[in-house]
Amino acid sequence: MSVFTPVSDSQLDGWLKGYSVGALLALEPIAAGIENTNYFVTTSQGRYVLTLFERLPAAEVPFCLDLMAHLARHGIPCPAPIAGLDDRYLSSLNGKPAALVTRLEGSEVDRPSAAHCYELGGLLGRMHLAARSYGGYLENPRGPKWWRGAAADVRPFLDAASAALLDEELRFQARHRFPDLPRAAVHADLFRDNAVFKDGRISGVFDFYFAGVDCFIFDLAVCANDWCLVDPASDHRLDEERTHALLGAYAAVRPLQPDERAAWPVMLRAAALRFWLSRLHDKHLPRPGELVKVHDPVHFHAILALRAAPGAQPPWTG
Amino acid sequence: MSVFTPVSDSQLDGWLKGYSVGALLALEPIAAGIENTNYFVTTSQGRYVLTLFERLPAAEVPFCLDLMAHLARHGIPCPAPIAGLDDRYLSSLNGKPAALVTRLEGSEVDRPSAAHCYELGGLLGRMHLAARSYGGYLENPRGPKWWRGAAADVRPFLDAASAALLDEELRFQARHRFPDLPRAAVHADLFRDNAVFKDGRISGVFDFYFAGVDCFIFDLAVCANDWCLVDPASDHRLDEERTHALLGAYAAVRPLQPDERAAWPVMLRAAALRFWLSRLHDKHLPRPGELVKVHDPVHFHAILALRAAPGAQPPWTG
Repeated sequence: MSVFTPVSDSQLDGWLKGYSVGALLALEPIAAGIENTNYFVTTSQGRYVLTLFERLPAAEVPFCLDLMAHLARHGIPCPAPIAGLDDRYLSSLNGKPAALVTRLEGSEVDRPSAAHCYELGGLLGRMHLAARSYGGYLENPRGPKWWRGAAADVRPFLDAASAALLDEELRFQARHRFPDLPRAAVHADLFRDNAVFKDGRISGVFDFYFAGVDCFIFDLAVCANDWCLVDPASDHRLDEERTHALLGAYAAVRPLQPDERAAWPVMLRAAALRFWLSRLHDKHLPRPGELVKVHDPVHFHAILALRAAPGAQPPWTG
Repeated sequence: MSVFTPVSDSQLDGWLKGYSVGALLALEPIAAGIENTNYFVTTSQGRYVLTLFERLPAAEVPFCLDLMAHLARHGIPCPAPIAGLDDRYLSSLNGKPAALVTRLEGSEVDRPSAAHCYELGGLLGRMHLAARSYGGYLENPRGPKWWRGAAADVRPFLDAASAALLDEELRFQARHRFPDLPRAAVHADLFRDNAVFKDGRISGVFDFYFAGVDCFIFDLAVCANDWCLVDPASDHRLDEERTHALLGAYAAVRPLQPDERAAWPVMLRAAALRFWLSRLHDKHLPRPGELVKVHDPVHFHAILALRAAPGAQPPWTG
């Protein structure tokens, strides 16, 4: 479970005196999540999530919190950071940077239908439009620069075939950069376990702690590689119906340019590479004291190999 | 009913393209309210209230919207203004300043219990603490300066006894100003019909369009004169149990200073005077084309006369 820094009721009770959210009624650790310590917090005013930031570089936290606040006030159903009496979102608790955000209602969907993907696509479109007026700037912290460093770190642990795939993909991506594609602050990690649905509608997206400025179409590719697989366990091709639902709903809100459509196959590979690398890194170079279950890198190795295979034609290549 | 400026589905549909809230599903006029045109708006994303500002001076609208946004991001359950794609809360619709805010859940309470007053007092305390970090400034637009102008306007319509009460109260208030009492942006109009409850808890306060900077204790007095009457129809004394609940819950969040307690009887009179004057003004000097039902000024005339009577001792005079 992912509580690295325990918080007691009395510690939280004192901390909450710096907020306008009423008295503490309940405090409950959250098992999910691999980066931070998270608790559900219920007060006389409402339901919140408390996050203690365990490894996020200090410069990145305000970017993420301010982005969430920006999106929330544009009507995007994401956790809204709660400002303290000092008018700041970021505080400190038990020696860690800490923030309180609103808790979303709804349930995760493990096996999304085309209707779920349609909901996701529409929300992603609205989120991208709203993000264009966000003034914060942080280059995607898991972008190409990070890929190169992570690749060097994990390469010694790879067999020859995997190392060749990695080298070849890095070369391919270096030859296919798209500096002119529309971009802004994007979620960049919007997997099925970072969204909730209620009554068939998407009721929230959360965990913005890998957010950064990148191409909108990259954000869509991250989603497609998780939400639209024919079968996540056995068939990593993109299901046509769900892929069309995702992209169609998105384009109805924010029409895609020809150069974005042209970049789609490359972005699907870039999105697979990014998660293959981070999972390799988490597996082979765990941080000291790491308590969490590591995702198997094999999954994204398979996705990347499939997307990068000669003649691969993902649905809707523009 | 209070729709002064009609809005059609197709007009709103076009206007909503400037927001990230999805497609219009339903548009429904709201009958309550005396100042603005209000509609319930349901989109594929959520439930909102659309307000077209009919008479609020242009300078006051941003103060009110920014205050609501400030309080909402501090966790106060008030309507949160939704920013448009231009990153502004205030827009224009059918020639009127217009804004979209979140819709609160819950029901109004016509006959509040001590438990309801306790809920209100706690929320008011949290709201006042949160308001202290709000940077906007607007002197209470229905404060002493406005009283004097309004009194001059309505005096010709009063009988001799009422005119004498008015003159005497204006003199009394002029002799009892409290420039040093703690103050910030306050609601200043938090009557029973501006709050909703759900499952016994206060779930929202709204209609911040008379907000301005004034003493916290004045805001409490406005509440007491509406929420704590023994019987609004027949007995305008303050019910001890409800008054103690309101003030006790408030003071548990934000302890009252001795000078605030000392000012309490004067503030109850000031709050009665302010609403007597505005109701007299609405009755005798209606704006051209005014469609709304006017509240009878007799109610606050009676409250003021009772509070100002020699020897009047409201509960908890400090």
